[in-house]
Amino acid sequence: MLDNQALDAVALSVRCISADAIEAAQSGHPGLPLGCAELIALLYGEILIHDPTKPDWINRDRFILSAGHGSILLYAILHLSGYGISLDEIRKFRQLGERTQGHPEYGSIPGIETTTGMLGQGFANAVGIALAERMLAARFNTQKDEVFDHYTYVLAGEGDLMEGVSYEAASLAGHLGLGKLIVFYDENRITIDGETDLALSENISERFNAAGWQVLEGDMYDYEAIFSLVSQAKTEHRKPSLIRLASIIGRGSPTKAGTSSIHGAVLGAEELRNMKIKLGVNPDISFYVDPKAREYFENKRSSWINMRAAWEQGTFSSFISSPSGSGLWKTFFGKKEDGKSESIQWPEYSTGDFIATRTASGKVLEVIARRRPEIIGGTADLTGPCFQALGDWASVTRNDMSGKLIRFGVREHAMGAVANGLALHTYGALRPFCATFLVFSDYMRPAVRMAALMKLPVIFVFSHDSIKIGEDGATHQPIEQLSALRLIPNLLVLRPADAEETVEVWKMAVAYNDGPVAIVTARQETEIFAKRDENWREDIRKGAYIVKKSHSNPDVVICATGSEVQDALKAAEQIPGNIQVVSIVSRELFLSQSKEFRKKMIPDSSKTVVLEAGCTDLWYVLFAEKSRIIGINRFGESGKGPEVARHLGISPDSIVSLLEKERT
Amino acid sequence: MLDNQALDAVALSVRCISADAIEAAQSGHPGLPLGCAELIALLYGEILIHDPTKPDWINRDRFILSAGHGSILLYAILHLSGYGISLDEIRKFRQLGERTQGHPEYGSIPGIETTTGMLGQGFANAVGIALAERMLAARFNTQKDEVFDHYTYVLAGEGDLMEGVSYEAASLAGHLGLGKLIVFYDENRITIDGETDLALSENISERFNAAGWQVLEGDMYDYEAIFSLVSQAKTEHRKPSLIRLASIIGRGSPTKAGTSSIHGAVLGAEELRNMKIKLGVNPDISFYVDPKAREYFENKRSSWINMRAAWEQGTFSSFISSPSGSGLWKTFFGKKEDGKSESIQWPEYSTGDFIATRTASGKVLEVIARRRPEIIGGTADLTGPCFQALGDWASVTRNDMSGKLIRFGVREHAMGAVANGLALHTYGALRPFCATFLVFSDYMRPAVRMAALMKLPVIFVFSHDSIKIGEDGATHQPIEQLSALRLIPNLLVLRPADAEETVEVWKMAVAYNDGPVAIVTARQETEIFAKRDENWREDIRKGAYIVKKSHSNPDVVICATGSEVQDALKAAEQIPGNIQVVSIVSRELFLSQSKEFRKKMIPDSSKTVVLEAGCTDLWYVLFAEKSRIIGINRFGESGKGPEVARHLGISPDSIVSLLEKERT
Repeated sequence: MLDNQALDAVALSVRCISADAIEAAQSGHPGLPLGCAELIALLYGEILIHDPTKPDWINRDRFILSAGHGSILLYAILHLSGYGISLDEIRKFRQLGERTQGHPEYGSIPGIETTTGMLGQGFANAVGIALAERMLAARFNTQKDEVFDHYTYVLAGEGDLMEGVSYEAASLAGHLGLGKLIVFYDENRITIDGETDLALSENISERFNAAGWQVLEGDMYDYEAIFSLVSQAKTEHRKPSLIRLASIIGRGSPTKAGTSSIHGAVLGAEELRNMKIKLGVNPDISFYVDPKAREYFENKRSSWINMRAAWEQGTFSSFISSPSGSGLWKTFFGKKEDGKSESIQWPEYSTGDFIATRTASGKVLEVIARRRPEIIGGTADLTGPCFQALGDWASVTRNDMSGKLIRFGVREHAMGAVANGLALHTYGALRPFCATFLVFSDYMRPAVRMAALMKLPVIFVFSHDSIKIGEDGATHQPIEQLSALRLIPNLLVLRPADAEETVEVWKMAVAYNDGPVAIVTARQETEIFAKRDENWREDIRKGAYIVKKSHSNPDVVICATGSEVQDALKAAEQIPGNIQVVSIVSRELFLSQSKEFRKKMIPDSSKTVVLEAGCTDLWYVLFAEKSRIIGINRFGESGKGPEVARHLGISPDSIVSLLEKERT
Repeated sequence: MLDNQALDAVALSVRCISADAIEAAQSGHPGLPLGCAELIALLYGEILIHDPTKPDWINRDRFILSAGHGSILLYAILHLSGYGISLDEIRKFRQLGERTQGHPEYGSIPGIETTTGMLGQGFANAVGIALAERMLAARFNTQKDEVFDHYTYVLAGEGDLMEGVSYEAASLAGHLGLGKLIVFYDENRITIDGETDLALSENISERFNAAGWQVLEGDMYDYEAIFSLVSQAKTEHRKPSLIRLASIIGRGSPTKAGTSSIHGAVLGAEELRNMKIKLGVNPDISFYVDPKAREYFENKRSSWINMRAAWEQGTFSSFISSPSGSGLWKTFFGKKEDGKSESIQWPEYSTGDFIATRTASGKVLEVIARRRPEIIGGTADLTGPCFQALGDWASVTRNDMSGKLIRFGVREHAMGAVANGLALHTYGALRPFCATFLVFSDYMRPAVRMAALMKLPVIFVFSHDSIKIGEDGATHQPIEQLSALRLIPNLLVLRPADAEETVEVWKMAVAYNDGPVAIVTARQETEIFAKRDENWREDIRKGAYIVKKSHSNPDVVICATGSEVQDALKAAEQIPGNIQVVSIVSRELFLSQSKEFRKKMIPDSSKTVVLEAGCTDLWYVLFAEKSRIIGINRFGESGKGPEVARHLGISPDSIVSLLEKERT
């Protein structure tokens, strides 16, 4: 029996907190929080198996607010249900330096499972999270102990479902039969431009049925009905569920509810006041929390703790006390091997041999994955072309999730976002990679950006890295993609020159835990060249090393990346004077090194030449002795526009002080 | 009554040409051409209303090979049916400098309606082409004369349908009721990785029904059945049609047909020989064309010419001879106004006023669109946010296509690809724009790239251009997007600093006919500053102009873009000495100017500072006096890898000769 009164008190509190926070910020999106207050109350109170006192409990149910513009809904319920966020922080919603950012950001507040706001991404992340649960279950669950058996819930809006990435992800989720994925569709029939049917006339139920989903329907404001729909969703083990909930955008707002004007604009003082009066709240009180709401969640606490304890002391304890269980657990959740172990048989190559870096990439990945079972992944229908071979990896299928190879299909965008979800489930437990051709990185760019924003340890592999693919022509020849990836903050881009570099680059990628990595490989066979500097394996970790050393001060330094290093070496033989050749495996890593290191690679007195089969724009930096450029090479922050700009150095002052510093 | 024997002769010739061309190139994708030879014979012989002797006949049926990797299928049928491509050119399939590029390229050979190969793009372009047909029909067709009444046909494969962009585009096509769009789905159930059901288990019929399509099914190798399915498709005026055709990949290949090994690999001499024997062709003959095929198409010629003549001398002549018809035609298809007309009332602004460039963008677009009815477009559900207002533009709806405003929905990727299709229908007849936030340009990047590759006159408008949007935070704050757009070859990127610049930038965009334009505007209000140099309206067309002029040689030049120009002006007041401020509205345009112009803006002797609220990487070029960077700043070409690389200057020789030139 649900306590409707208590749930109403929670919903009322969510509405008041949300509307007041948005009013205080004079910025935000009231439509969704007001429209979904009842659902979020029911979810956090009655549906989620979670424990706010231990937000990182590994077998918790996950909730993803895909419609991230409704962030305040999440902040409000996280506060009310006892996650670590205070009302004071909510009062500073959307202000610079606060954790209550404009859109929910992973890592900022416990209970936020992923960063959302780019529509469709959260939905697709959730598919990855639900897939991670099943893949971990296949690895850990025993007949006796169901170590992993949680659900993944999503709240999505019309915008999420109109984005291509959500179609791709839904198709994959249906294909893989992710029965523990339950998506609530907030069907308020309003978008920014007006009524949804301005642009959308799909039959949503038929669409999801076609993709292999169960579709249920109900009323957003009927607790019992939703509760029973969720139970029904759970009885379908082989299909993800979409629960369509007819709703009213901005519910509670006296004159704006049900209209597009409430989607993303503040209510205004008068409307807010009238809303409070209508809801029976003293209009002079801000950030009102109904005492019944507090009481309700306080009473929940012990049962939450007990549920978690039952898992920890029952299921998990039983599992971990078995010898095989403990070892297995450590493999996935313990400290990871550093790759330096002597016992690893890394692929070895001989100078003068020809092998494509994509092939070398497949070979070294195989070696790594044998030692590191948490490394799993796949390609967008290009497994052969991207790696040549990945041994006899078993595919992940709806009937058997114990395989390592995920068949993402021709769905690059969902591949990236699902890989992000795999990484998000439990940071580092699964280490996903995903691969396609470099030119198709454009198709998945938003997902790569999200991985970078969240600093997720996803390894993106991009093969067919230049015009040297030849016959496939301009549509398939990357020109700007390599540089465009380098522009994404927090993304480590690595482009090896030959098979030996490829081995090192993969080691670097696996050892890197500060964010995503892009490994860029070539289709064509390239010669393995002699490494003249015995320090090359150390230096390459700084982004560059000397391939051909000039023993005196070099007259010319030729810098190249990827398979253009071979061109540089050939040129060096034809140029008079002392020639040094440098392989820059990562421009960004190299640029971040000490001046000393950089000057060792490229001495000041040498003529420098750069060769790369792509846009030239990013290499002028090597020739710009005295540059004065004020810009932003990191992701932004939520706050008032002028404050954010000042904080990130975009202001007249930055120019004035830069010039002043030069004068003094 | 179909002449099955003749059609078989065409199909046989298509198979032989395709397999031999791929064998000669030792590169290509035989699976689709061999599998769809019958369909393409039927299409070009019996279904398309076209005239190979006049490939640009405006009311021709369009055919789009969305599965562009099957390019040789298209080249073969264009040759056989009498378009301007010789067998000699086909013999040089995929060779450097030839028009028979690896994937079909728009503009290279008459009869290629769009560049395909990036999966899903062709499908979405076709939606735009079919929409253009309806929009032009709404503008030109009279009760008496159906000036526009052609069909748009597509051949798509599994890969096309798995891409998110095709879901988005299909949803839009269904919503708009594009009854004259007919898509053949080559359902061979094989992808690169193997059987399609490795990754796809959707119910395709249900999926397209859900999106408002008619779905029909048949056998790829039954001419009568397909012909009658097409007739059936045509009787449904309110829905686009998907015709599912069960097929065999690589049909005719004795041992490889029906397997993934034939998708993208040459048959090999023996298999090719055995195929010819199996098909009853002398295995010693290469590029065999059945005389019956030649005869068949020769016999078609006069009826094609007659069909076109009937339209030209009947429908069109009747239409154009009416006074209103002739004037209207000139508006869309004649020489376009140059925007210099004195009679245009451009928006005017006063120095010191505050207005957001997004608002100014909406205002000037309104003025332009009133004079230029061919300018049509819309947004991805952000019409208000991107423009503030577009007057009282009528929406394009399924019941009335005479409006100007297209409601693309939250479908950025399809928006870009559909806009490309609108431009492709008849180059310049419709001039589409489409808009979203700058950060979402990532969602549509492949479409922007395709517009650039094809040099289509699409205007992409990106609002909310920097961290100054403030409260929405990191997910919505562009950092790398502006620079990433600049990296795309052929794309003109314009970022105006205030409302007055916005007017000029829109004029530049409309006057620009060499490719797509990206106009980047700001959300926040910015002050209109005084333009000190009377030449500013001329200079801005070169990418930059002097905002604040230093009358002697400036000590400091501050370069800025967009709303950072205001910061630069404020800084200039606080810095001692002679300060010059330059607004760089287009980095690429500025860099392409004469040295003289660039030195006028940024004299050598001045200290230069650059300010932009985004990645710094692209600005080092201004500080790199003597740079030696060899790379590629244009799109690639089809040919053998090493030849392409040499052709584009990626070779040891480039380095050697660059250094040699310096020495002499």
